[in-house]
Amino acid sequence: MDPIDTLINARWIIPIEPVGRVLEFHSVAIQAGRILAVGPTSELSGRFAAREIVDRTDHVLLPGFVNAHTHAAMTLLRGAAESASFERWLRTQVWPLEHRWIDAEYVRDGTELAIADMLTSGTTCFGDMHLYPEVVAQTVSAAQMRACVGLPVIEESTSWAESAGECLEKGLKLHDDYRDDPLVTTCLSPYASWALGDETLIRVRRAADELELPMSMHVNESADEVVAEGERTIARLDRLGLLSPLLAAVHMIHLDDVDLDACANAGISVVHCPQSNLKLGNGVSPVARFKARDMNIAVGTNGAASNNDLSMLDELRTAALLARGIPSAHVTIEAHEWLRFATLNGARALGLGEVIGSLTPGKWADLCCIDLKRAHTQPVYDPAAQIVFAASRDQVSDVWVAGRALLSSSRLTRLDLEDVLERAQRWRERISKA
Amino acid sequence: MDPIDTLINARWIIPIEPVGRVLEFHSVAIQAGRILAVGPTSELSGRFAAREIVDRTDHVLLPGFVNAHTHAAMTLLRGAAESASFERWLRTQVWPLEHRWIDAEYVRDGTELAIADMLTSGTTCFGDMHLYPEVVAQTVSAAQMRACVGLPVIEESTSWAESAGECLEKGLKLHDDYRDDPLVTTCLSPYASWALGDETLIRVRRAADELELPMSMHVNESADEVVAEGERTIARLDRLGLLSPLLAAVHMIHLDDVDLDACANAGISVVHCPQSNLKLGNGVSPVARFKARDMNIAVGTNGAASNNDLSMLDELRTAALLARGIPSAHVTIEAHEWLRFATLNGARALGLGEVIGSLTPGKWADLCCIDLKRAHTQPVYDPAAQIVFAASRDQVSDVWVAGRALLSSSRLTRLDLEDVLERAQRWRERISKA
Repeated sequence: MDPIDTLINARWIIPIEPVGRVLEFHSVAIQAGRILAVGPTSELSGRFAAREIVDRTDHVLLPGFVNAHTHAAMTLLRGAAESASFERWLRTQVWPLEHRWIDAEYVRDGTELAIADMLTSGTTCFGDMHLYPEVVAQTVSAAQMRACVGLPVIEESTSWAESAGECLEKGLKLHDDYRDDPLVTTCLSPYASWALGDETLIRVRRAADELELPMSMHVNESADEVVAEGERTIARLDRLGLLSPLLAAVHMIHLDDVDLDACANAGISVVHCPQSNLKLGNGVSPVARFKARDMNIAVGTNGAASNNDLSMLDELRTAALLARGIPSAHVTIEAHEWLRFATLNGARALGLGEVIGSLTPGKWADLCCIDLKRAHTQPVYDPAAQIVFAASRDQVSDVWVAGRALLSSSRLTRLDLEDVLERAQRWRERISKA
Repeated sequence: MDPIDTLINARWIIPIEPVGRVLEFHSVAIQAGRILAVGPTSELSGRFAAREIVDRTDHVLLPGFVNAHTHAAMTLLRGAAESASFERWLRTQVWPLEHRWIDAEYVRDGTELAIADMLTSGTTCFGDMHLYPEVVAQTVSAAQMRACVGLPVIEESTSWAESAGECLEKGLKLHDDYRDDPLVTTCLSPYASWALGDETLIRVRRAADELELPMSMHVNESADEVVAEGERTIARLDRLGLLSPLLAAVHMIHLDDVDLDACANAGISVVHCPQSNLKLGNGVSPVARFKARDMNIAVGTNGAASNNDLSMLDELRTAALLARGIPSAHVTIEAHEWLRFATLNGARALGLGEVIGSLTPGKWADLCCIDLKRAHTQPVYDPAAQIVFAASRDQVSDVWVAGRALLSSSRLTRLDLEDVLERAQRWRERISKA
C-alpha cells in the first residue's frame, strides 16, 4: 500500500470535471497538498495507507468555492452603509468611511474577519481588490488560505499610494515578492474605467501582458458607466487593448450586443455578483447572454458592505434563482453548472484554472465538504440541487487548502475567532463614535 | 417579586410594534404562554421571580417568523422535481408523484420534516395548504407548533375527497374539531380560481363569511391564469365576492392597475413567495405596487419542491434584494419593514394578527432568538440589516411557541430528528424506485 497524507471518504463527490458527474461512496487521496487520486472508497482504501482518514458519511465533497471578486477588508463596514442607491452608498457612505479609517491595521483586521467568513462557508480562494495589498497577502499567508491579491491601481492619491504610478510600482514589487508562493498570487486591479486615464490603462495592460498577470476590474456596474465622453466603455477598453483572456470584468450589468460580442471575441471572463448588484439597485447581469456566447462566467460576493456576507452558497442561490425567474436572464442553467461557475470558472477568471477548481489529480487539494444531514436538505434526490437551492453555510463541515484542514468539523483550525471578532467589534466602536 | 414562568434577557429585542424599534439589553417576561411584559433587563429582573431565566448575550430576540404559505408535506419531494418551467413542473413532475404517493402517512411524515425545517429556521407558525388537513393538524398539535391549517377545496376527485362538496364537508368538520385549540386554527383553501367553478367559489365565500374564516388561495402565479374565458381572474373573484379582508391571495405576480386597485380596495392580503416564483420561472410579484397601495404584504416559502427549503430568513433575503434591484419592484423597503412582513403581516394574513406577530403584552409568546456572534454577522451596526442580509438559519438558537421552548440552544426539544429523517429517507427510496 502506498503511504499518503490523507484519504477523505465521502457519501457523494462532485468533481466538477466532468460537469454534472456525481460519484457515490468515493474518496479523494491527498499527498503533499495535491490531489493524488479520486476513486471508489472500496478501491482507494485498499490502495493507500493514509496517515489520516476522514469519513464523511452524509456529506458532499467538492472543490472549495472560488469567490472571484471581493473587497475582503470591507467586512468591517458590514451593515454600516445601508443606502439603496449605489451612488449614494459609494460616495456619501463608503468612501468617506474608508478615507477616514483605512490603514494597515484596518486592512489586516477586516481581511482576517473576511477569511473567517469565507472559510466557514466553504470558500478556499478569493480574488481581492483593496488598498494595502501587501497586508492582504500577509494575512492570507498567515491564515494559509489561497487568494489572488489585487494590485490596486487608481489615479487619486490615497494613504497607500500617491498616484497610479506609485500604485503600479508598489504592486509590481508585491507581485515579485510572491512570485513563488504556493498560496498567494496577484492580479492587476485597475479600479474602473471611469477612474483611470488612457495612459494608466495602457501601462496596466502592458504589465499584464509582460508578466502574464490577470487583470480584475469593475466594468459597467451602474448605468452611468456605460458611456464616457461619447465613447462606450467596452469600446474604450477594446481600443486600449484591455479586452483579453487576462481580463476578469466584474459586474457587467449594462451591455448591448456589440459590447457583448467584443467581450466574447476577446475571451474575457465575467464575474457575476448578483446580491450586491441587487442590493445597490444596479440590476441584474445578463448571464443568459454570456452563456449564449460561451463566455467564462464566475461568481463573486463583492464586499460585505453591500451583501452583507461573503457566503458563496448564498450568492449561488440568488444567482440560480434570478437566472430562472428574471426574463432578461432567462436561460436554463442547471445546478451543476452553477457549481462549476463557483469553482472552476472562478479559478479560470483568476488565472488559476490549471491548479485548482476541480478534483483533478495533480491539482491542489482545495476542497470543501457539506453535510446534507439536516431537516432542510433531506431527503436527497439530487445533491447538486440541495447545495444550490437549500444548503446553508453552517453545513460546511470541513475545508482544506493545499491539503491542510483549515476548517475541521465546523471549527477554524488556525484563526482565533474570538480575537478576530473582538477586533472587529473595536473597529465598530471607533467607527460608530466618529 | 411576581412569580412568572420565564424571563428571556437579550442583547437586542426587535418587538416589531412599533416598526423600526431596537431595544438593547431588554427582556421578555412570559407567564402562562403569553407575553406579560417587555422592558429593560435591569427593571424586569427586579420585578419578576422567574422559574426559568434564559440569557442570550449576543442575540436578537424577535417574534417567530410566520410562513404565510407553504405545502408542508411537499418536503418529501425536495429536489425531486427540478424543471425550470412551472407548467412542466406541476403537470409532469409534481402532480403525478403526488397522485401516486399521497396518503395519511406521507402527509404526516412530510409535515413533520417540514416542522423540523421550519422550527430550526425560526418559524413558529405556518399557513398550510395540503390534502389530508386532519393529519396536518394532528402533526402540528403533537409537535406543539402553531399553524393555520388550510381546508383544501378542489373540484377533482382525490384520495382524500371525491368532490368540492366533500372537501368542504370534511374541512368544516375539521374546523369544528379545532374550534378551541390554542395552536391550530384553520382557513379555507380553494386551490386556485382556474381549478374551481363559480358555484364552489360562492360556497367557499359563504362559509368564510359565516364562520369569519380566512381564505388562502393561489392567484395569478403564472401568466396563463390572468384571464379565463374572457374574464380577468381578479374581476371574477370580485364578482363572486371573494375579494375581502378574509382573503390571503398567494403569489399575485401578474396584475394590472385595475386588478391591484380592486384588491387594495377590498382589503385583501398578499403572500409574496419570491424564491418559488423565481425558481419556477414565474417572475417577481410587484411588491412596490402593493406597498404603494398600503396592502398587507406577507411572505411565504411555498412548498419545498420549488424552493427547496422552508427558511424564512432565506426567503426574506431574496425578497429584500429583489425589491431593491429589480426595476419593476423598485421601492425602498427597509430591513425592519421586511421583518414586519415576515411576522405581524403574516399573522394578519392568517387571521392571527391579534394574537401573535409582535412582542406585545397579552399576545402568545411565539419567539425566535438569533445569535449574531458569527464571523459573517459581526460587527453589528444594525441588527435588522444583519438578520435580513447576512444571518444564516443555523444562527436561530431558540424558538418558543406559546412560551414552550421547541428549539433550545439549537436542538429540537420535542421532535426526534433522527426518526423524522429516517422516514424521509424511506420515502425517497420508495419514490425513486417507482
